[in-house]
Amino acid sequence: MRSGSDFLLAARQCEIAELEQLGRTAELVGVIARFIHALQRERGMSSIFLSSHGAQFGELRAHQVAECLASEGEVRERFERMATGSADDRSGSRLFSRVAVVLHGLEGLPRLRERVDAQGLGAAEAAVAFGRLISGLLAVVFEAADTATDPEVSRALVALFNFMQGKEFAGQERALGARAFATGVIDSAGQEHWRHLIESQQGCFQVFADFSDPQVLRAEQAARDSTVLAEVERLRRIGCTARRELEAGLANRWYDYCTRRIDAMRSVEDLLAVNLRDLCRERIAQARAELQDQRATLDALSTSTGAAPGAAGAARFGPLLERSLFNMVQEQSRRLQAMSDELDAVRATLNERKLIERAKGLLMAHRQMSEDEAYKALRQMAMNQNRRILDVANAVLSLADVLPGGR
Amino acid sequence: MRSGSDFLLAARQCEIAELEQLGRTAELVGVIARFIHALQRERGMSSIFLSSHGAQFGELRAHQVAECLASEGEVRERFERMATGSADDRSGSRLFSRVAVVLHGLEGLPRLRERVDAQGLGAAEAAVAFGRLISGLLAVVFEAADTATDPEVSRALVALFNFMQGKEFAGQERALGARAFATGVIDSAGQEHWRHLIESQQGCFQVFADFSDPQVLRAEQAARDSTVLAEVERLRRIGCTARRELEAGLANRWYDYCTRRIDAMRSVEDLLAVNLRDLCRERIAQARAELQDQRATLDALSTSTGAAPGAAGAARFGPLLERSLFNMVQEQSRRLQAMSDELDAVRATLNERKLIERAKGLLMAHRQMSEDEAYKALRQMAMNQNRRILDVANAVLSLADVLPGGR
Repeated sequence: MRSGSDFLLAARQCEIAELEQLGRTAELVGVIARFIHALQRERGMSSIFLSSHGAQFGELRAHQVAECLASEGEVRERFERMATGSADDRSGSRLFSRVAVVLHGLEGLPRLRERVDAQGLGAAEAAVAFGRLISGLLAVVFEAADTATDPEVSRALVALFNFMQGKEFAGQERALGARAFATGVIDSAGQEHWRHLIESQQGCFQVFADFSDPQVLRAEQAARDSTVLAEVERLRRIGCTARRELEAGLANRWYDYCTRRIDAMRSVEDLLAVNLRDLCRERIAQARAELQDQRATLDALSTSTGAAPGAAGAARFGPLLERSLFNMVQEQSRRLQAMSDELDAVRATLNERKLIERAKGLLMAHRQMSEDEAYKALRQMAMNQNRRILDVANAVLSLADVLPGGR
Repeated sequence: MRSGSDFLLAARQCEIAELEQLGRTAELVGVIARFIHALQRERGMSSIFLSSHGAQFGELRAHQVAECLASEGEVRERFERMATGSADDRSGSRLFSRVAVVLHGLEGLPRLRERVDAQGLGAAEAAVAFGRLISGLLAVVFEAADTATDPEVSRALVALFNFMQGKEFAGQERALGARAFATGVIDSAGQEHWRHLIESQQGCFQVFADFSDPQVLRAEQAARDSTVLAEVERLRRIGCTARRELEAGLANRWYDYCTRRIDAMRSVEDLLAVNLRDLCRERIAQARAELQDQRATLDALSTSTGAAPGAAGAARFGPLLERSLFNMVQEQSRRLQAMSDELDAVRATLNERKLIERAKGLLMAHRQMSEDEAYKALRQMAMNQNRRILDVANAVLSLADVLPGGR
């Protein structure tokens, strides 16, 4: 028959198993970050290639496709390991379902590249297709952050997710600006979208800053090149304030400076991923050491109390040791509860995205919109009403009950 | 290399594994409910036995102890199965840690009974010792509700937990009243405690009502005996308004009527436990059927799209089927997210208890109080300030940052 101390140790072993699982997810996230970066570059190059009718970036793009394929191989290998691992790990169903979306998206990638090769689609359409794939990959990272079982690791994942999402908005901005400067034309809707992308970046980087430690923030500061930022801001101003016609010949300059900015972000992203991996390892090592301590204490207790009845040791220390075992048990329960409370607090920062996702889902169901259309509709409402997307999403959700067929 | 549809199926299999785990937890909860009921009876009988200096309930108590031992055996057997099962199931560490508290408490039970036999402790002290054990068992049920992965099952667990907690307050009220009527004395602190126990029952039964379906509510109505309730209310009035001295000879009457009320609750509790078990089985059967449907659809898709290139079927249906696979993948992701949102909403009702637990922990750390003392202190503050315990707990927690050594 198992005793209280056996379950005390079993609880700790579960924690270690959860942390190990989290460690594998963290490695997956690192590999996904690299793949997204490669796809972002391919998207930017494809944009210019298509906008310039094949005159520019042809060769660079071919190189970049090769890099993407290598990176995709790494991601697929990690997915494969997940599938062959334990079936009942903690976040199983949700993470697996996000992976299904990504794998399905990847199946369309070769065809997308063929169409770009043949210039068989517009630059904007290509950018949307890449964006959809990247958004699926980001959803895997989001899910990892939302289902992490350790508050410290969850904080690190929230910081990394927001940084990656901010960088993706920067990538979308690069593609939008590249199209505008390459074609020499931008309309007011394009300019509004541009401003929206700038604001979205700020929001993400703010959360990243809130959840990062000083070392990461210093690295992020150091990675910023003020000359690059100043030039990006100057070109942003030109693009966002132009009256339809844009000065020709700025496309390459815009692409260059944006790329320098984004590549600098990549170094921060890499640091975040490495820190995340190290944090998982530390937490695992720490939990193992604590398990060992606990086991040693319990052994010591049972040796003293297990002495022959009436022996001096048991008589003297019995009630005292009993008390200390009770304290250990109580302390562990409280610690686990505190961790769970802290986790809830960290996860609350992810609610904004969940609300927007739900509002999108509602529009898709009621207005037969695609996902992109639903997001565009929300963004448009926000712009028209001069409100945040989050507030518009909340308003849409509060209408759910009165809409026909709403839940 | 695994495809999107493989992961789609894997996600569903994870869900099934989680539901099966939940089913085992639900069975454990049913067994715990029976054990708590037996302990509550033993507590009541021990109270009268001690208060009457061994004159009353001696034999009944001996029978009840035997029933408790049988029920304890069932609980221990379930614990044993948990420990030998998969180590990395979802709620592992927290549930295991709660079980450790219970097992540790059970080790003190034989000694407690010896002291009652020998009339070596007061009735109030014995009631507190039984109460602590029951509270540990309720914490296992609470944890099961808080870590359930299915919103419907979580709702059923929240309803059951609140019903059990309300019934436990009723049991504490029975013991308190039994002591008061047996000794013929009650002071104003005792009366305040009594009123607090009545209010706490109401709070719990309200949550139970909010989370239960009409069938259960009808059964609960039917189980109420208005004659019994009227007599309990009359005796409550006598006990709560008396000026110190109580009419003699009411102890047995009070114990009897309370017991009839609580035994009627037991039948509702049993219905809740059976419904919970059936719900888990239904959800598992449903998830398995959905998995089979999904597999059949995917097989049909791959047969059509796997046809030789250029075949009429693939050419005609390819993009259409592609689209439907995409929809399946998206739909599943959204469903899982919606389930998770709903879960968060259900769990929010458990926050009250968590806040009170945290405030207790803070008082224990800062004032070197025991758990019972900390709870008493909170209750006292609430009574003095005429506020709810929840508000007092919140006030205590908001002081955490300014207290020395606060987190």
